[in-house]
Amino acid sequence: MSFDPSTLKYDANGLIPAIAQDAASGEVLMMAWMNAESLRRTLETGQVTYWSRSRQSFWAKGESSGHVQKLIELRVDCDRDCLLMQVDQIGPACHTNRRSCFYTAVRAGDEVEIMAPMAG
Amino acid sequence: MSFDPSTLKYDANGLIPAIAQDAASGEVLMMAWMNAESLRRTLETGQVTYWSRSRQSFWAKGESSGHVQKLIELRVDCDRDCLLMQVDQIGPACHTNRRSCFYTAVRAGDEVEIMAPMAG
Repeated sequence: MSFDPSTLKYDANGLIPAIAQDAASGEVLMMAWMNAESLRRTLETGQVTYWSRSRQSFWAKGESSGHVQKLIELRVDCDRDCLLMQVDQIGPACHTNRRSCFYTAVRAGDEVEIMAPMAG
Repeated sequence: MSFDPSTLKYDANGLIPAIAQDAASGEVLMMAWMNAESLRRTLETGQVTYWSRSRQSFWAKGESSGHVQKLIELRVDCDRDCLLMQVDQIGPACHTNRRSCFYTAVRAGDEVEIMAPMAG
């Protein structure tokens, strides 16, 4: 069946959550949001483009930083309301310069930083 | 720093997306939603409890099916508006009886089922 981005379930703002996972290591790098057009751009270009809710604009990941996400494979969940992207991430995915945005763990009730920023 | 669920950023409905990842294999199993109270219950019981948006009620994962998710580690992202949970998933995570909800891939423009329901 041919994939059509318009068949996904978007929220009231026309957005769908998209999880980026390192295709090689399996590490979950980040979660951000897409609308149908950002998903089309992602599929067309092969590089992940999100929708920035704070800036209300397209967010071609790595456009300014060079930390692009090359799309390896797109997956859709059973409810068609969440996306999982297998990606090839250049450098850090996080704006804090860490490989993943999920660098804070909760251990024994405390927040613990489990990942250092990448060397510049 | 002591972790307090009330310090997370919830959306207008008081919810935060929570990604469940197999702690052993790294497979992303599902994404669902939590409110502060479901997160507290998850941390207290060690078993994942979501908030069901469709039923508007707590959803103790596996309560009826037995397919519980034991929380191994909770992680918080840089913006504090998304959770990543390392879990020990008993049986399938998906209501379709598949291990993961992300069993549909987009390959060469077509939707392809990449995972069969589990036996039993």
